[in-house]
Amino acid sequence: MDVPNHFELLATDGAARAGRLTTPHGAVRTPAFMPVGTAGAMKGMHWREVRDAGADIVLGNTYHLMLRPGAERIAELGGLQTFTGWRGPMLTDSGGFQVMSLSELRKVSEKAVTFRSHIDGAKVELSPERSIEVQRLLGADIAMQMDECVRLPAGRDDIERAMQLSLRWAERSKHAFETAPDGYMLFGIVQGGDIPEMRHVSARGLVEIGFHGYAIGGLAVGEPQAVMLAMIEETAPALPVDRPRYLMGVGTPADLLEAVARGIDMFDCVMPTRNGRTGGAFTSAGKLNIRNAKFITDDRPLDEQCPCSVCRRYSRSYLRHLYQAGEMTVATMISHHNVSFFINTMREARKAIMNSRFTEFRKAFLAGLAETGNDGDVS
Amino acid sequence: MDVPNHFELLATDGAARAGRLTTPHGAVRTPAFMPVGTAGAMKGMHWREVRDAGADIVLGNTYHLMLRPGAERIAELGGLQTFTGWRGPMLTDSGGFQVMSLSELRKVSEKAVTFRSHIDGAKVELSPERSIEVQRLLGADIAMQMDECVRLPAGRDDIERAMQLSLRWAERSKHAFETAPDGYMLFGIVQGGDIPEMRHVSARGLVEIGFHGYAIGGLAVGEPQAVMLAMIEETAPALPVDRPRYLMGVGTPADLLEAVARGIDMFDCVMPTRNGRTGGAFTSAGKLNIRNAKFITDDRPLDEQCPCSVCRRYSRSYLRHLYQAGEMTVATMISHHNVSFFINTMREARKAIMNSRFTEFRKAFLAGLAETGNDGDVS
Repeated sequence: MDVPNHFELLATDGAARAGRLTTPHGAVRTPAFMPVGTAGAMKGMHWREVRDAGADIVLGNTYHLMLRPGAERIAELGGLQTFTGWRGPMLTDSGGFQVMSLSELRKVSEKAVTFRSHIDGAKVELSPERSIEVQRLLGADIAMQMDECVRLPAGRDDIERAMQLSLRWAERSKHAFETAPDGYMLFGIVQGGDIPEMRHVSARGLVEIGFHGYAIGGLAVGEPQAVMLAMIEETAPALPVDRPRYLMGVGTPADLLEAVARGIDMFDCVMPTRNGRTGGAFTSAGKLNIRNAKFITDDRPLDEQCPCSVCRRYSRSYLRHLYQAGEMTVATMISHHNVSFFINTMREARKAIMNSRFTEFRKAFLAGLAETGNDGDVS
Repeated sequence: MDVPNHFELLATDGAARAGRLTTPHGAVRTPAFMPVGTAGAMKGMHWREVRDAGADIVLGNTYHLMLRPGAERIAELGGLQTFTGWRGPMLTDSGGFQVMSLSELRKVSEKAVTFRSHIDGAKVELSPERSIEVQRLLGADIAMQMDECVRLPAGRDDIERAMQLSLRWAERSKHAFETAPDGYMLFGIVQGGDIPEMRHVSARGLVEIGFHGYAIGGLAVGEPQAVMLAMIEETAPALPVDRPRYLMGVGTPADLLEAVARGIDMFDCVMPTRNGRTGGAFTSAGKLNIRNAKFITDDRPLDEQCPCSVCRRYSRSYLRHLYQAGEMTVATMISHHNVSFFINTMREARKAIMNSRFTEFRKAFLAGLAETGNDGDVS
């Protein structure tokens, strides 16, 4: 393991961890939620608001950015941070996952994935090497290896084949990343579906190659929460204790806390902004939808416990009025609250871990969520 | 004239004026541009941003708010400022203009206008008295009399009939406003189309009734700019020098400066936000549209002279990328810039008036606008 470590583990409480990851664009306090700025933009939020919402780090999608405006163009314009105006740390995914979910006529070979752009139909090839090149052109503080993610349920053969391919791609990704400047990081991604043995093989293989941090991929892709948590329990202990662990694409506030309890440090998810756009607000009492007529005369904020700038200023009755009136600001306001809520939940978890009271915190938090009987991604 | 005066004239430069209007929710520096928050919301902006953009006062539309969520409901919820979260001064129009432009099956009688709501088809009656009642329920710092506005070109008889009706409605409006608390204001509205004589009759009639301030209505409704300016030149000198003068629904940055040069103190217009939503940016070099392909690699801000938070952070290339990617933030960002630009233009005009260099300022500003050859409301 010749890979420098930029992660500092500050406290543990059971399996839960609090730490600090230092990137070229600043420090990230963990556990950390990374809001997703797909195409170089946080949907409905200015970057200043993303910072106000408490974000230390955001995620950008390589697939979108390489197609439009293009990685070389972003590099010419100074890289993603200069181009977008988000000056903080940024993690980019490899592009592989979205090739699978968004593009047409994709074909996976040992060498690369070829596909047609969902924007203009152009034929594009994405190899592990090109993915790293694109992420470096973007200027990501943290790049992800290219992998193949299998939707669950899937057969054992499919899971094994994709996991082994991902391991070979991990090695190629690391090789391609070798000339990156100091301080920039590359994370490997554990695959292996819902089969504990495959998860172990994947984790061992990645640790042998050696990465700055390790992600758990291929979860939240159709399986029940219990399966997801079981796979985290299998995988996290197999990863180096001194390196950051990132659970990709997860999840609800309850998912996040359960994963923190199992040793995960970083998360990303589009849920806060996607739900925000259709009126769905995450709160400490569970989820609510502002379209509901009962909010017409409700002068409370979305969440009475929430310190965000939307909850300090706007009532449910006002937000519902904006929704009825077709004012797009309601989408931006609820997105802002949701992003704040996710980040603040991680901030509170971090405090609890550092004060050795994470178990009580998690229990009280989960009990609170049950109030509306709704913590899902259903707007 | 038994009407208290809350306007202080601080400086004049030719016919141009700089002043301060004191309202129950704070002071308004004039010349002032009032961004339009139609339905209790500034399209694409949070109220905090409206304040950041420099707004001292905003305009709310009585017609929209009385139909949804309803004036009585807003009053129950604490009035417009409490309901919306905009804590500063607010002016509301009478609702009459939008009845004419938005509703169906409207019928004007001496007593009132009856119409069908454009939202649910309900039959509604709006009289001068009800308009004042609604505006008081909303809690507007400045209410407007109900008037009838005739689109130009129009025949002399039509213009005269509407102007005389508006005068009678002015008297009824004032009577209805008599019990308003101290500090709240009612403005009369000069009508009379493009006929100087009618404008004089209207102005004289209103001054006899006596108002806290005077608006010039019925302009920017189809006539050339020269006609509009001529009508301002006829009307402004007929209004009391110590009272604020408000030109309704105007206009481009050039229109604003020309009107300031003729003694106008206040403006409102939806142009900054309406253009912002379709990519049209007002700048000190004229108008530009971010959809234009030439901005793909343009790393300058929308306006190199502009101190707004969007111009400090975002490049034309980034904004164009957001437009191409269908990100709604581009609408909110350009709206923010546009509102800032309009307000800042008035702020600069005010400084110039106070330093007796308004003529030079106006000349230089108008020359600058010509750069793109585009100052119109064309997105």
